[in-house]
Amino acid sequence: MSASPIKSKMIRRLLEVGSADNIRKSLKKLHPADIAPLFSELPPSDRSRLIDILFSLKKVGKVLKEMPEYFLREILHEIDDQKLVTAMNNLQPDDALYLLEGIEEERQKELLQLLPHNTRNALEQLTLYPEDSAGSMMNVSVVALKESMTAQDAIDHIRANSERMGINYLFVVDDNQRLSGLLSLRDLLLAKQETLISDIMNLQVISCEPTLDREEVAQLFAQYNLLSMPVVDENHKLLGAITVDDVIDIIEEEATEDIYYMAGLSEADRAFSPLKESVRRRLPWTALNLATASLAAFVVGLFRDSIAEAVSLAVFMPVVAQMAGNVGIQTLTVITRSIALGEIEFSTAGKAISKEMGSGLIIGLLAGVVIGAISYLWMGNMYLGGVLAAAMVLTMVLAGTIGALIPLMLRSFGFDPALGSGVVVTSASDILSFVIYLGLGTLFLNQIGS
Amino acid sequence: MSASPIKSKMIRRLLEVGSADNIRKSLKKLHPADIAPLFSELPPSDRSRLIDILFSLKKVGKVLKEMPEYFLREILHEIDDQKLVTAMNNLQPDDALYLLEGIEEERQKELLQLLPHNTRNALEQLTLYPEDSAGSMMNVSVVALKESMTAQDAIDHIRANSERMGINYLFVVDDNQRLSGLLSLRDLLLAKQETLISDIMNLQVISCEPTLDREEVAQLFAQYNLLSMPVVDENHKLLGAITVDDVIDIIEEEATEDIYYMAGLSEADRAFSPLKESVRRRLPWTALNLATASLAAFVVGLFRDSIAEAVSLAVFMPVVAQMAGNVGIQTLTVITRSIALGEIEFSTAGKAISKEMGSGLIIGLLAGVVIGAISYLWMGNMYLGGVLAAAMVLTMVLAGTIGALIPLMLRSFGFDPALGSGVVVTSASDILSFVIYLGLGTLFLNQIGS
Repeated sequence: MSASPIKSKMIRRLLEVGSADNIRKSLKKLHPADIAPLFSELPPSDRSRLIDILFSLKKVGKVLKEMPEYFLREILHEIDDQKLVTAMNNLQPDDALYLLEGIEEERQKELLQLLPHNTRNALEQLTLYPEDSAGSMMNVSVVALKESMTAQDAIDHIRANSERMGINYLFVVDDNQRLSGLLSLRDLLLAKQETLISDIMNLQVISCEPTLDREEVAQLFAQYNLLSMPVVDENHKLLGAITVDDVIDIIEEEATEDIYYMAGLSEADRAFSPLKESVRRRLPWTALNLATASLAAFVVGLFRDSIAEAVSLAVFMPVVAQMAGNVGIQTLTVITRSIALGEIEFSTAGKAISKEMGSGLIIGLLAGVVIGAISYLWMGNMYLGGVLAAAMVLTMVLAGTIGALIPLMLRSFGFDPALGSGVVVTSASDILSFVIYLGLGTLFLNQIGS
Repeated sequence: MSASPIKSKMIRRLLEVGSADNIRKSLKKLHPADIAPLFSELPPSDRSRLIDILFSLKKVGKVLKEMPEYFLREILHEIDDQKLVTAMNNLQPDDALYLLEGIEEERQKELLQLLPHNTRNALEQLTLYPEDSAGSMMNVSVVALKESMTAQDAIDHIRANSERMGINYLFVVDDNQRLSGLLSLRDLLLAKQETLISDIMNLQVISCEPTLDREEVAQLFAQYNLLSMPVVDENHKLLGAITVDDVIDIIEEEATEDIYYMAGLSEADRAFSPLKESVRRRLPWTALNLATASLAAFVVGLFRDSIAEAVSLAVFMPVVAQMAGNVGIQTLTVITRSIALGEIEFSTAGKAISKEMGSGLIIGLLAGVVIGAISYLWMGNMYLGGVLAAAMVLTMVLAGTIGALIPLMLRSFGFDPALGSGVVVTSASDILSFVIYLGLGTLFLNQIGS
């Protein structure tokens, strides 16, 4: 069970009063994931003491890779090159790459020079693939068996390469290193010594190319309940493998990205990231919002004379805008999420859009009748009620359509379907609702009166 | 690689023209996750043919468990009791439970009676735990080793219980069935035959109790990079284990739940769920929205006389409301997400709230100056600009505070922090912004003029 708050208190006390030896002992027993959060609570002097102790325990790399990106950048400044190189050298290449990406380019080059030839090569190979691609997250150090091996040969081969194997899946390749099957350790263990690998391997291998985006990698893991997925080149040659533990982080990050993008936030803007950082990252979104809000004000300004004549029109502006915005966001959410989970295809998009329009129409009709009745009872004017009801139906159908179209369009242009979509959908439905509602109101101005 | 659209087309053609034998052959090769989506595209008659063929291939259960909940309910109606019982009997208990939960209570009881004693017991045991708890999702059929076994004993034990083991982790228990360690298949395979299990087992086991909520289960998997987690009772007795493939589904579902709840949507409201279902589920949220929107209209109504005197006040209503709403949603998103990822504790909530207030203040000041200047240039009235700027600062600080407080309050009362929070935060910031902006405007009404 996770008891990290208690453990964290204990370590902080030990750093204050304990001997180096006691601290070592406690840190040795702690999981790297429990040590990483400690750093955010320590003053810089204690941080460097902690780093020194972790270094002597060969745990620096493992702890660093558990830190969130914004915090990692800060900590990496406080670690000297030699320690960092040793730490990176002890990590799997994909994890070492995570540390490297938190470092400014100048220092990156220096560190790469200090790394042993092998590690540098492995790292540089990963950087050949696009960011967030399957290739950049794969583990290149996998065990490849031959179909002609017996179970005993395979076990001997694994023993000889025991440091290579990250997880409990083995890959079978032909003489040209082309992937031909998958073997679970479990099946290997259960097989008789003389059984041929070709007889127990699984031929139904789900694999991917190194350029596949990590979101689609995650979808494959979720869809096929994978624990490990081989990455192959265009000739089906085995390049490496992606493991499920990395995929869990990706699914969480992609979900955060979607939620954040819809709200107009940048990924690195976290609850505990520095205030200055958060403000800086929110400013562009704020500017965008201010621009669209001013546009909405401009639209309302066009109807100043109507409002001056019938102030009750202004009273119901928030209702139309809020209801339309809500339908837009609902639809946007349903569509964005179904894209993220891989449920929607180009061929089925039309069906989804027309459903959202239908839902907007039905809910708009119901809400329109209710709000029309409320306004009639309150203001005593049938025409205002009618204008409100009609505006509600029209704007809710349109908002539903926009909410479904925007993410699908962003997607088809190659953008993230969630990017800024919340801001765009809210402002578009706001502006449309003012045009329609105040426009209709102006048409019936004489009947609505003051 | 996933080539499901092509495969799906192929199967649909085969169902039209192919022989039963050809269809069987194709279905045999397909992954259950690729067969499940086919059902949504077939007419009922083909569905029952497909079920019959899958039944003869013993694949019905595996295909059903890959279906989304809303669709599973529909399909289960079309399968007779005997086939369903056989299918459930071939599944792991946690997967059989997923099917059972898609069936109305009356039929559930009948089916349970038809199941073999063992399977019924295993299922009923899982239903003892709360919904969405660790206990309800664990696999009770795990292999437990003894510390005193040698590696060879362990391998023999595994061979004898080969059907029990879902995944590549083994659990070590003492004489009272209490969990004492964890052993990876990998370490077992690499050990010498005579090595004692107690010498190679891992003592640092992350475990949980059966009542733990699935969201926290997922957090533990993500935090400690687990592949499997044992579930133990209060005496540390081994009850079963949760595997990582189930956790991936949970992480995706929890992320969907958060995004949906914030937008005012119910989980089962998907891109391709029936229109009637979507409308029915959105109606309560629409009613809530209509109520809060009417409240906003009522607030604006209080200032009718002011608006009648200075129509330019109405023009900028959308700006204040939209900017406040946006800050509220941004803050809400940051806090909700950090709760979901387990980053925020009760002790650190204050720090997060004050940061969001600070961010609201700084961004409010900047946006206030800009919009104040815009309105002055447009309307030529300094007082209106001043009122707008002041209202912007005040509402943005308040919206930031509300956005941070609502999810934390929901959480501390034991609710999901995202539940309806988007609707509440948007309406609260709308209403507050109208009160503040129109209130200030009324104070300076003589200076603002028309």
